[in-house]
Amino acid sequence: MSQYWSEVVHKLTPYVPGEQPKIDRLIKLNTNENPYPPSPQVLAAIQQAASADLRLYPDPGSDSLRDTIAAYHGLQAEQIFIGNSSDEVLAHTFQALLKHEQPLLCPDISYSFYPVYCGLYGISYRSIPLDADFRLNVEDYLQANGGIIFANPNAPTGCLLGLDKIEFLLQHNRDSVVVVDEAYVDFGGSTAIALINKYPNLLVIQTLSKSRSLAGLRVGFAAGHPDLIAGLNRVKNSFNCYPLDRLAVAGAIASFEDEAHFQQNCAAVIASRDRLTASLNDLGFTVLPSAANFVFARHPQHNALQLAQGLRASGIIVRHFKQERISEFLRISIGTDVECEALVSALKILLQA
Amino acid sequence: MSQYWSEVVHKLTPYVPGEQPKIDRLIKLNTNENPYPPSPQVLAAIQQAASADLRLYPDPGSDSLRDTIAAYHGLQAEQIFIGNSSDEVLAHTFQALLKHEQPLLCPDISYSFYPVYCGLYGISYRSIPLDADFRLNVEDYLQANGGIIFANPNAPTGCLLGLDKIEFLLQHNRDSVVVVDEAYVDFGGSTAIALINKYPNLLVIQTLSKSRSLAGLRVGFAAGHPDLIAGLNRVKNSFNCYPLDRLAVAGAIASFEDEAHFQQNCAAVIASRDRLTASLNDLGFTVLPSAANFVFARHPQHNALQLAQGLRASGIIVRHFKQERISEFLRISIGTDVECEALVSALKILLQA
Repeated sequence: MSQYWSEVVHKLTPYVPGEQPKIDRLIKLNTNENPYPPSPQVLAAIQQAASADLRLYPDPGSDSLRDTIAAYHGLQAEQIFIGNSSDEVLAHTFQALLKHEQPLLCPDISYSFYPVYCGLYGISYRSIPLDADFRLNVEDYLQANGGIIFANPNAPTGCLLGLDKIEFLLQHNRDSVVVVDEAYVDFGGSTAIALINKYPNLLVIQTLSKSRSLAGLRVGFAAGHPDLIAGLNRVKNSFNCYPLDRLAVAGAIASFEDEAHFQQNCAAVIASRDRLTASLNDLGFTVLPSAANFVFARHPQHNALQLAQGLRASGIIVRHFKQERISEFLRISIGTDVECEALVSALKILLQA
Repeated sequence: MSQYWSEVVHKLTPYVPGEQPKIDRLIKLNTNENPYPPSPQVLAAIQQAASADLRLYPDPGSDSLRDTIAAYHGLQAEQIFIGNSSDEVLAHTFQALLKHEQPLLCPDISYSFYPVYCGLYGISYRSIPLDADFRLNVEDYLQANGGIIFANPNAPTGCLLGLDKIEFLLQHNRDSVVVVDEAYVDFGGSTAIALINKYPNLLVIQTLSKSRSLAGLRVGFAAGHPDLIAGLNRVKNSFNCYPLDRLAVAGAIASFEDEAHFQQNCAAVIASRDRLTASLNDLGFTVLPSAANFVFARHPQHNALQLAQGLRASGIIVRHFKQERISEFLRISIGTDVECEALVSALKILLQA
């Protein structure tokens, strides 16, 4: 607390990211990082960009990357907005497109950063409960609103909403923006980017952190109607004109240029997820159907927090949320097969204790 | 304009950065970039950081860089805040520390992004005129305020305010925060970081873009009392937990570790500035005394906008502002000596025409 803080700072409840431990040799299955490295082409592109040109500002709109992503998804350049991670893109989206008279609607169980953005920008929101199986019922969203946002696949559940359901939301909500946060979509979902040319009120947000193994590079983007993108650019150009450094732009472009590496990487994670799900089922866990690079699992006889603490004592960290409804679950990121096997072995010992 | 934009987006007047031309062979003296490359150690550090570890999130607080900067300036870690460029640090500062009941005070001629931040966060501000010689008179700031911000050396004038004057402002303004934006301080000023342990209401903001030749890497920082830094961290952790990528952290640390390169680079720019100032004086220009890596110059007989257009036609771009009081000036970044000589030759021809 300080007399110098603005009112908003006093009221804020900041987001708490998953632990980034400074201890070596931990098996880190708590922040949904990809267990496999980015494309070698990405590393080569960055090494080439580490040149005397770093003395110069980057292109303010990251135009070369914007054009690459537009072409990759069959869109026009003016339908793409680039940001310093999808979290930054989300922040600008909340301020630019989701602050209106009516409350923002979002699921009660979702990315826990959404309510934080509402606090930062003074946005009223209404939390809509997922059903007992953690599924989003689109009928629940047929009410006056200043916007709708959800993650698909959802976090931290991993559950997927079909494009037909998203289209229902778009059709019944033409006066406000529907934001689909697709951080995990490449691990089993179908992107709503396919609907962008049909619905001017759709904004899709993606990140290179998960499926492209680039959490350390901080690149995200939004795709939507040019009017929505223009709104985001107005905020971005009133905040920080050059959000991406030259290295991030070079690396991100190279990632989109190595489709084979991307596909192999995603397929490997999906295969590991299926094996891990089967092993957890064998141990008596209930695992929600996941289309993401993590699983959300509970054990009917064992306390989740204690399991998380037991795993940590064994050198494995997973994520536990204290929030009601999900406090009996563990969110486990998909690691390499060796890491997943170590997790299963450690859980076996903990369940027997 | 779009029905989906929030009220703030409709009202915004975004910042307009200096042109980043996509044409080769232009002499670019318009955005105050350093004409010399960053330290080779910076490039080596980035190349080493371009590794498989990019799959992992960076440290949320960029702690290793924070510690490096704290040690460099003789401060504690909790007195330093790291951001994705000093523009991002400024944005968080406006929201966290400068939004209060009373208006923010800033000079009428200063970094033109300040009023944009006020628009973004709904901050009322009062513009205080610099004197006829573009000097800041500290007596003018003895009035109720919710904060004071100015650039030192000032932009786009280059004029320096002494630390004694800054101390006067701090002593007479203990109830609000005084922000000193030192983007250009390494080219001839003395940093107010020396005053931080004495004044809990002082925040100093610096960038690696100019004196460290890293505009393309996007790294800035603030130094101040731990309470001010905590306020900034609360906003940052409600906006984007991981603002700096792994490459920027590695490169920035290496820059602070090559003091010799930094000092040589600054000395070279200062020497060129002095030579350019003399040449411009010879051509009849009035040049304001500059402690920055640019000069602000006017010619009594020639229209500044026409000169800027004439230079551009000769392949040289400088910055011209339409704002009243300074519309007869050109802001010219210090280039290499070859670039400065090309500028002087082009001006000679334009003045004779």
